[in-house]
Amino acid sequence: MTAFTVRIPPVSTALDTALQHKIDTKTKPLGALGRLEALALQIGRVQQSLTPRLSQPQVVVFAGDHGIALEGVSAYPQDVTWQMVMNFLGGGAAVNVLARDQGLAVQVVDAGVNHDFGEVPGLVHAKIAPGTANSAVQPAMTSEQAVAALERGRALMREAREQGCNVVAFGEMGIANTSAASLLLHKLAEVPLDVATGRGTGVDEAGLQRKQAVLARAAARTGALREQPLQALAEYGGFEIAMMAGAMLGAAEAGMLVLVDGFITSSAMLVASRLAPEVLGYAVFAHQSAERGHQAMLQAMQAQPLMMLDLRLGEGTGAVLAYSLVRAAVAFLNEMASFESAGVSNKD
Amino acid sequence: MTAFTVRIPPVSTALDTALQHKIDTKTKPLGALGRLEALALQIGRVQQSLTPRLSQPQVVVFAGDHGIALEGVSAYPQDVTWQMVMNFLGGGAAVNVLARDQGLAVQVVDAGVNHDFGEVPGLVHAKIAPGTANSAVQPAMTSEQAVAALERGRALMREAREQGCNVVAFGEMGIANTSAASLLLHKLAEVPLDVATGRGTGVDEAGLQRKQAVLARAAARTGALREQPLQALAEYGGFEIAMMAGAMLGAAEAGMLVLVDGFITSSAMLVASRLAPEVLGYAVFAHQSAERGHQAMLQAMQAQPLMMLDLRLGEGTGAVLAYSLVRAAVAFLNEMASFESAGVSNKD
Repeated sequence: MTAFTVRIPPVSTALDTALQHKIDTKTKPLGALGRLEALALQIGRVQQSLTPRLSQPQVVVFAGDHGIALEGVSAYPQDVTWQMVMNFLGGGAAVNVLARDQGLAVQVVDAGVNHDFGEVPGLVHAKIAPGTANSAVQPAMTSEQAVAALERGRALMREAREQGCNVVAFGEMGIANTSAASLLLHKLAEVPLDVATGRGTGVDEAGLQRKQAVLARAAARTGALREQPLQALAEYGGFEIAMMAGAMLGAAEAGMLVLVDGFITSSAMLVASRLAPEVLGYAVFAHQSAERGHQAMLQAMQAQPLMMLDLRLGEGTGAVLAYSLVRAAVAFLNEMASFESAGVSNKD
Repeated sequence: MTAFTVRIPPVSTALDTALQHKIDTKTKPLGALGRLEALALQIGRVQQSLTPRLSQPQVVVFAGDHGIALEGVSAYPQDVTWQMVMNFLGGGAAVNVLARDQGLAVQVVDAGVNHDFGEVPGLVHAKIAPGTANSAVQPAMTSEQAVAALERGRALMREAREQGCNVVAFGEMGIANTSAASLLLHKLAEVPLDVATGRGTGVDEAGLQRKQAVLARAAARTGALREQPLQALAEYGGFEIAMMAGAMLGAAEAGMLVLVDGFITSSAMLVASRLAPEVLGYAVFAHQSAERGHQAMLQAMQAQPLMMLDLRLGEGTGAVLAYSLVRAAVAFLNEMASFESAGVSNKD
């Protein structure tokens, strides 16, 4: 099998004492900013700085198609993938609107959409193949393709870092990709398929049962893969998931903060974290989505999501919403007065 | 008893069908934006518009002192109230930093701080008295004072609306005001005192027991007040709570969106909603705080908080953080493409 090696430095705790002191002497009771305080500490760790800065934030949306869509596992036709890519490029999708409001740039990557986009401007052309194979009957991709996707994602983030970006939100689009994410969760964390499988974009009860039957068939093709993340990715992943996993690893390698969105984005982080567990130190889990399986996915990574807003859209929308909390954490760390500077009496 | 009358028009559901149609034809699966969709609907109702706008958002921080602080119910000395008011005016407190980041103006109101601020610029001078009386042994304020505070808050919001503001976040500062809020929760919603009482800014176990004993003594002074919100407010409230309750009512009267912060701000909304239940239609509950009692407080109003970030700072910090979700809701309603406009295939 083709090799993929990555080594990510664990986030350094060298500044922890100084960071915690800075947080604790702000004019507020100890710990009163709750999750924002932990977030500020994490960002200080990632940037190795007592005065972290957020620079050129962007959300990268990876798109890809899935052969398993042929099995009728989604409520939408496969064409919606490329149509939504055009919607992203046109600025009209949810992620565009929310990113504009929050001040993040949107980058759209064709990781493997089953459509010829020609010379459409603004799209990052990184197509590995026009959609994966149907993982219900054969591996979704070859191991060479999996590694190519990982490496391409990794290179994208190296470039983004060189251009000044130090915080990146991840999102995705791909009809049937909740099926891929459920299979990865099942294989990598041994979560039972019925817990790992949900309604995606909204299949009805009959659709859910069909989807579960298809996934059971797909899962039965292989044995245990818990210790083989690269093989699990090739067997059941998608090109957008693989490229996203590589991008997450690349972002962490480059010392960037990584904002993780919902179920599918989390499945990419699950793969990434099995390839290099240190990536989790760079990861902020934005929210727990309404998709069944996301809770188990987060638990598999001991991840604590910041929000629960019943989102189930993907595209990076939840990660973009959480960016406001990241900004808030950095702002309080840098700008709040201390008890001393403000002349406020501290607790006796 | 001095009278206070207010009549708030219920938010109109006249546009509900049109609003829901607009939400449902956006390029996303039905309901996929979760809580943001309900928020967009609510804002459309409050503004009676399919294209709501947020105008001159502000956070108003009401400050007041509490006689019950004498009983040692807080971890901090009473002077912290006026010192933090100066910190707000100097721009160094958490609420200032977060509001700056989110684009809200900060208004600071002296509703009843035990300090002579003199001619300090930027402060809204609305002092009813220099702190309440000690509610462990006597009513915190007279009913005349309660009504004066309510009316002053109401007038403040009328002015804000006239100046173009249509969305307001509420916050507060007042050493010992979790004690007032716990007593209001106990008396107005009949929540047992041990459920209603928490650690506030961070008293230790012994401090918590002392606080509970003090509150039990205070509660025993009066009989049931469930049906007498104005009397409960006078017996146990604070000037900042009373003025905030009046301001919430005034904001709703003026058709403004009201963002509710944590435990104390919620106690003001509890009072307001007992005076005029229709106010709840204008209210967005930002978060569930880490203060014991807040969950029961929210349940007493059937309120669903947007976030759970373990905040317990007050000042309006959580409400300001939630403003980004309000902005996101308005942005998606106004700016997202529809399936038709984007040429995206809908679910069959």
